[in-house]
Amino acid sequence: MQFNLLTIVGVGLIGGSIGLAAKRRGVARRVRGLGRQQASLDRALSVGAIDEAHLDPQAALAGADLVVFCTPVDQIADQVLNFAQHCGSTALLTDAGSAKAAIVACVEAKLPAGGPQFVGSHPLAGSERRGPEFADADLFQGRWTVVTPTSHTSAAAIERVTRFWSALGSKVKLMSPADHDRALARTSHLPHLLAAALAATLSPELRDLTASGFRDTTRIAAGDPRLWTAIFAQNRASVLDALGRFEGRLQEFRQALESGNHAAIDQLLAEAKEARDALGS
Amino acid sequence: MQFNLLTIVGVGLIGGSIGLAAKRRGVARRVRGLGRQQASLDRALSVGAIDEAHLDPQAALAGADLVVFCTPVDQIADQVLNFAQHCGSTALLTDAGSAKAAIVACVEAKLPAGGPQFVGSHPLAGSERRGPEFADADLFQGRWTVVTPTSHTSAAAIERVTRFWSALGSKVKLMSPADHDRALARTSHLPHLLAAALAATLSPELRDLTASGFRDTTRIAAGDPRLWTAIFAQNRASVLDALGRFEGRLQEFRQALESGNHAAIDQLLAEAKEARDALGS
Repeated sequence: MQFNLLTIVGVGLIGGSIGLAAKRRGVARRVRGLGRQQASLDRALSVGAIDEAHLDPQAALAGADLVVFCTPVDQIADQVLNFAQHCGSTALLTDAGSAKAAIVACVEAKLPAGGPQFVGSHPLAGSERRGPEFADADLFQGRWTVVTPTSHTSAAAIERVTRFWSALGSKVKLMSPADHDRALARTSHLPHLLAAALAATLSPELRDLTASGFRDTTRIAAGDPRLWTAIFAQNRASVLDALGRFEGRLQEFRQALESGNHAAIDQLLAEAKEARDALGS
Repeated sequence: MQFNLLTIVGVGLIGGSIGLAAKRRGVARRVRGLGRQQASLDRALSVGAIDEAHLDPQAALAGADLVVFCTPVDQIADQVLNFAQHCGSTALLTDAGSAKAAIVACVEAKLPAGGPQFVGSHPLAGSERRGPEFADADLFQGRWTVVTPTSHTSAAAIERVTRFWSALGSKVKLMSPADHDRALARTSHLPHLLAAALAATLSPELRDLTASGFRDTTRIAAGDPRLWTAIFAQNRASVLDALGRFEGRLQEFRQALESGNHAAIDQLLAEAKEARDALGS
């Protein structure tokens, strides 16, 4: 057992999967869930993602040696700062947010020295679904988790959080918060924006004429708008930069189409296929 | 048995699936495959998609009462016109191409009267995979097939081709070739273009940082570039129109991001979610 008591703040699909994985793999002796809605906590209890359900932060956090914040990115920094007072000084705090720079900067600027330490994390796993009923003990198996230390993070904290994600089955990569956000803008936030823009262009009378291509390409647009608005707000500059790169490619396609340059279309599609094939299915 | 002898021209994933479905469902007494490569035909034979493999059109088409062209869209019209001479005058010819107006116009202008009739079809099924080894007898089950008659198409031909696709498990919708192409530009060809443009922006060093969102959104970019170049070439005007609609939506997102208008981002994402949720998973 790496941890005696793990507290998960926000037990949805990600938080629930962390709980399930930690229990199945013997990573934590006991798992507590902290939430705002008893009904959601009850579902997490019923799928076995947590051992105890709490609505009160103080009761949930007392004695925890690891706390993982799995709440929307616009709530994480405030919660870390508010809840740290309930944690022991040796507790390790981390999160699962999809944007890191704003959270890490805010927490590092305000978290008092000598208390629990915070290290940012982002497991690259999830889905457009919500809720602990979709929790999956193998969600992190073989997937990457990015851990985002800074010059203020202790080596011991980096090692503890790395061992935690590794024990859940994940591969771990260390990146600065800014590098993480630039990369994820291109690999996650831009795809979400495009999927949403495409889904939003679909007139209802065309629904019957969609097949697996449209459905795959827009699947993530079914994600929770509020969660994604917060991610876009926190990673605005990098998302705009990624969008600019994409628009450049799109203009190449447009020009090739407009001019009837079939060789250029074929070349663009071949480059795309090579890039996509490299990812596997 | 609706048909005594079905000949499939081009036995890849779609042609092979038609053969498998026709045999399993008792739609055709015998199924012939016509191809250019013996190795590919042998694979179609080995998975049971066809009963006979032919490299010679005359031998493949003699006595066929239904011929389905499942070749790339830039080959279909020429093949229909060249092969019709080998077919009896009561044979029905159709195809499975993803763009219809150019094919139908060319065939109608040149196919001699009094011989076999042609009706365009497009089953909205398939995948980024190629080859008869991916054939699936249930590929058309519950999916739509668009049949594209014109004022020159006989009611009997429409009825025969409709009964054929229905017997394979498909639902059938009649549309004009032009309406089909305008709709599919928005539901299939534009998504392909966006998936390809997104895949093409991915630098190799970012591959590890992709998760299911990027993979879903770009999956169709693994499709065969040559097939898709031909589709884009045949449906250029409608694809450009669909691209213009999409670019309009993308500009709304860009402006909302640039101005930090979170309410507008949330509203766009909510519209997208509503549209995507209506499609199911």
